[in-house]
Amino acid sequence: MSSSPDSSPRALMARAVALAERGLYTTMPNPRVGCVIADAGGAVVGEGWHRRAGQPHAEIEALNDAGERARGATAYVTLEPCSHTGRTGPCATALVEAGVARVVYGMQDPNPSVAGAGLQKLRDAGIEVEGPLLEEQCRALNPGFIKRMTLGLPLVRSKSAMSLDGRTGMASGESKWVTGPAARADVQRLRARSCAIVTGVDTVRFDNPNMNVRAGDMALEAAVAEAAAVIQPLRVIVDSGLRTPAKAFILQGDAPTLVVTTERAEPARRERLEETGAEVLVLPAGGDGRVDLLALLKELAQRECNEILVESGATLSGEFLYRGHLDELIVYMAPKLLGSSARPLFELPIERMGSVLPITITEMRAVGHDWRITATTDIER
Amino acid sequence: MSSSPDSSPRALMARAVALAERGLYTTMPNPRVGCVIADAGGAVVGEGWHRRAGQPHAEIEALNDAGERARGATAYVTLEPCSHTGRTGPCATALVEAGVARVVYGMQDPNPSVAGAGLQKLRDAGIEVEGPLLEEQCRALNPGFIKRMTLGLPLVRSKSAMSLDGRTGMASGESKWVTGPAARADVQRLRARSCAIVTGVDTVRFDNPNMNVRAGDMALEAAVAEAAAVIQPLRVIVDSGLRTPAKAFILQGDAPTLVVTTERAEPARRERLEETGAEVLVLPAGGDGRVDLLALLKELAQRECNEILVESGATLSGEFLYRGHLDELIVYMAPKLLGSSARPLFELPIERMGSVLPITITEMRAVGHDWRITATTDIER
Repeated sequence: MSSSPDSSPRALMARAVALAERGLYTTMPNPRVGCVIADAGGAVVGEGWHRRAGQPHAEIEALNDAGERARGATAYVTLEPCSHTGRTGPCATALVEAGVARVVYGMQDPNPSVAGAGLQKLRDAGIEVEGPLLEEQCRALNPGFIKRMTLGLPLVRSKSAMSLDGRTGMASGESKWVTGPAARADVQRLRARSCAIVTGVDTVRFDNPNMNVRAGDMALEAAVAEAAAVIQPLRVIVDSGLRTPAKAFILQGDAPTLVVTTERAEPARRERLEETGAEVLVLPAGGDGRVDLLALLKELAQRECNEILVESGATLSGEFLYRGHLDELIVYMAPKLLGSSARPLFELPIERMGSVLPITITEMRAVGHDWRITATTDIER
Repeated sequence: MSSSPDSSPRALMARAVALAERGLYTTMPNPRVGCVIADAGGAVVGEGWHRRAGQPHAEIEALNDAGERARGATAYVTLEPCSHTGRTGPCATALVEAGVARVVYGMQDPNPSVAGAGLQKLRDAGIEVEGPLLEEQCRALNPGFIKRMTLGLPLVRSKSAMSLDGRTGMASGESKWVTGPAARADVQRLRARSCAIVTGVDTVRFDNPNMNVRAGDMALEAAVAEAAAVIQPLRVIVDSGLRTPAKAFILQGDAPTLVVTTERAEPARRERLEETGAEVLVLPAGGDGRVDLLALLKELAQRECNEILVESGATLSGEFLYRGHLDELIVYMAPKLLGSSARPLFELPIERMGSVLPITITEMRAVGHDWRITATTDIER
């Protein structure tokens, strides 16, 4: 329990973080940012958060909310104010013009080529600048945006549903409803925060999923869910041989679909898929003749994807994992046993105890009758 | 948070439960029982718990502690006082003779042939009798004793150590140190509360475990650990063909070892094992020619085993599970991935989603860097 009064800088920044979280499902490809403007006594006079690309940044929202009360006040903003003119004017300039006396920031801009420029612009205008404050929480708002800005790659998260004995479905392929409705709603929310959902052609062929965000299935307030579902993540099928059936559900609906393949794909198959409205992209193949996953990730980063969700069978997710491309594993564990002939969580060719993959479990929580396990990997290959 | 004062009947019974827990590792084959004697104002004047078979029951300990202050007082006892003369005199008589005015009990005697007799004896002597109070907590002290008294079978618990992906060791058999030291200490405590540890001949042949309780490895206060290690659980090897090597560690040390086998075992092998001091017992075979596990459990109940721990490979533990003999699964999950060719948690022949085994996860907690999952099954076969 914190003994800080609500007007402490930490409490005000925590409020800004909470505001930023309201943009969880809608700011892509921009970062989630929140801003609180408080007077000299710590009383909040303005609040704002970035809602959607093309709409005002958090600082502008908060300044508009504060009006004249911004003069001489302190702005708490989760991310360094921008100094460049994007779709909206630079926020640093707006803060200066509004007469803000002090800016407390949560983290610097993760883009190394502009980091610090916004803060410098503020200082040059005589504004007192402090930070970083609650940096860890502020960074946690935008793991994908930060990774893309610093490494040119999206954050990659996998989602799996398994039994207590680590199995995802029957050997026959039968696999529906391993986990319960609360876990499935949680998956909808994971999809909604992602810029792209990546799956494999075998999942498309055998499970025929929609891979879309459905407002009614998110177990969120209707307005939030509906706003989230407006921005459908890109659906990506890894399909080295272009075996995706043209009638697959994943090629239908409002969300865009990208089929990534290799040079060996037949032109006729490509044409048939393109006729459905899907985009087909040839990527380099790895040594095994299949789509090079790193090339795919670079492509998705180029398309401004911050967070991507891998929802596939054990082969493709195992390959992402084994090649060191997974940042985070989310595993829903159902209270059942599927038995020893059932399908594995990840296809991973490991022969010796010395080669096991260490992970770090960062969260464990109940989701309905299931358990959600979050883990990170630090595999370097 | 409870708002009850410490002198409430619930608080006094909770204290009796806590006292009973001190006998967790030592009362076998008797139940764990605690007793608190409180005066009219609720002040505790005597406390006791059953420590070890052959030593006084909890009520006698508490009466001795209270002395003359027991007269007119209330006794809170987690289990109905006994009315029969066992190794010690009947506790009901002792409570009457001490002049106790009121007895509050946690649960009735689970033995259907004597349940209520102790309470009746007290009532006949003019003592006010109330209960059950905190029955669930009182029952939880003695799940094995209760099952043995009511069904003539011990409580059966399995212990497994797996990776996040549900694997227990390499295909090659390599499996040491899947989990960390905190989990291994927890296993020592599970062994110490058990009357018997059951394993299979393959585990003996390939892992060569001691299967004993080691005071230094329990991560408990020295005095408690040493008292626990004095009572070594019976080590049971399920060995249908008597393939246990005579030099196996499990045949050595102070703990007794029982090898259960079938009629097809060769007399020469039997003799060689008996020469090591082990007992060899022929049990009926099931349809598959292997030891009938229900016959084994009945035998162990006859030997007054309350709780037994199955520590074996996936084949034997899977058979216990599949045949409906497991009451509780304890699974330690380590933060690592062992891969898809590694060994399964349980060998379970399930082909269809309709046949998956439902379980109930009753507890999930961190144990060092690992997670301990407790689950119950309700498989009826």
